[in-house]
Amino acid sequence: MAALEFWYEFASTYSYPAAMRIQGLAEDAGVSVRWRPFLLGPIFAAQGWNDSPFNIYPAKGRYMWCDLERICEAHDIPLVQPPARFPQNGLKAARIALTLGDARIADFSRAVYTANFAQQKDISHDATLAGILARLGIDADAALAAAHAPENKEKLKNQTEEAMGRGIFGAPSFIVGDELFWGNDRLAEAIVRAKQ
Amino acid sequence: MAALEFWYEFASTYSYPAAMRIQGLAEDAGVSVRWRPFLLGPIFAAQGWNDSPFNIYPAKGRYMWCDLERICEAHDIPLVQPPARFPQNGLKAARIALTLGDARIADFSRAVYTANFAQQKDISHDATLAGILARLGIDADAALAAAHAPENKEKLKNQTEEAMGRGIFGAPSFIVGDELFWGNDRLAEAIVRAKQ
Repeated sequence: MAALEFWYEFASTYSYPAAMRIQGLAEDAGVSVRWRPFLLGPIFAAQGWNDSPFNIYPAKGRYMWCDLERICEAHDIPLVQPPARFPQNGLKAARIALTLGDARIADFSRAVYTANFAQQKDISHDATLAGILARLGIDADAALAAAHAPENKEKLKNQTEEAMGRGIFGAPSFIVGDELFWGNDRLAEAIVRAKQ
Repeated sequence: MAALEFWYEFASTYSYPAAMRIQGLAEDAGVSVRWRPFLLGPIFAAQGWNDSPFNIYPAKGRYMWCDLERICEAHDIPLVQPPARFPQNGLKAARIALTLGDARIADFSRAVYTANFAQQKDISHDATLAGILARLGIDADAALAAAHAPENKEKLKNQTEEAMGRGIFGAPSFIVGDELFWGNDRLAEAIVRAKQ
C-alpha cells in the first residue's frame, strides 16, 4: 500500500480540515496514512517567531479565519470562531498522540481538533484530554502517565527535529518519500503522488 | 458582467501562474478581470520585512520553488529556475502597467512575467520593458515617460495603499466585492464567487 506521512500540530488551524478529511480521501485512494504529530513552536522560534504568524501579522490572521471558515463550510466541518484562545498549547495532546498506536491516533487526533476548533475547549487541560481518551475506551490515567514519561517527551522532541530536518516549516505538511507538500490545499495532490 | 479584481506584483512568484491563467478561466466563466498591479515592498516593510519572506525564511523559500515548479508543470507554464535574481524589482513595470488601458495591461503583464520567470531577464531594465512594449505595438519612449510622470508614481503609491487598506498582505490576491482570496490556489474559487 502506498504511504503518506501526515505531519500536523494540534494548534494549527489549517491542520484541522486536513485531519478531518485525510482518512476518507486516503482510503478511497488506497493510500495508508502515517499520523505524525509535531510541534510548530520550536520551528517558529528558529524563524524568530514567538507566536503564531497569524497573530504576529494581523492582516494575514484576519484573512486566515475567513479562509478557514470557507474551507470548513465547503467540507461540512464544524468551526466555532473566534476561538477562546489562539494558538492553543498542543504539547500535551501531541505527547499523548505519540503513545497511541496506528489504530487509535487518528481518532484521538480528530477528537482533539474538534475540541479545539468546534467546541472551544482548552486542549492543554487534562480534563479535556482525559474525556477524549475515555470516550475512545483508552485508560486516561495510563495514557497521561505514558505521555509524560521522559522517553516519550524525547520522542516528540526528536519528531519535531526530524520535521525541521526534512524541510517542514508549517502545518499541515504531507511527505511522500522525500517530497514535501505544505498546507491543507495540497492534501489531494499529496495523495495522488502517494499512489504513483 | 461579473467582476474580479486581480491584485498582483511583478516580483511575486505565485502571481506568475495566476497571471498566465486568469484571463482564460475568467472568460470561460463570463467574468471580467480588472488587473491591479501593486507593490509588495511597502506592505512587507510594514510587517517588518526588508526582503521576500521566501529569502528571509529559507525552508519556506526552498519549498516555494519546488511547489511553483509543480504548479507550472501542471499548467504547462514555462519556468526557468533558479532565477538570476529574486525578488526582482517590479517598480518600473508596475508603473508602466498602470499607464496602459484595459486592452493592453493583460498582455503587457503576462509578457513581463514571462521575461522574469521564463526568460531570466531583468524586468527593471528599460531595454527589457521597451522590448516588451515594442512587441505589443506600444510606443516605448512615450510609455516610459508616462510611467515616470509624478502623477503616475502617485497613482501606484495610492494603489498600494488601497491594497493594504483592503486587507491585502501578499500576492496574488483576488477581490470580489469586499471578499478577499489570497494565492494562486484561490483563483478558481474567486472566479466562482464573482459569478454568484
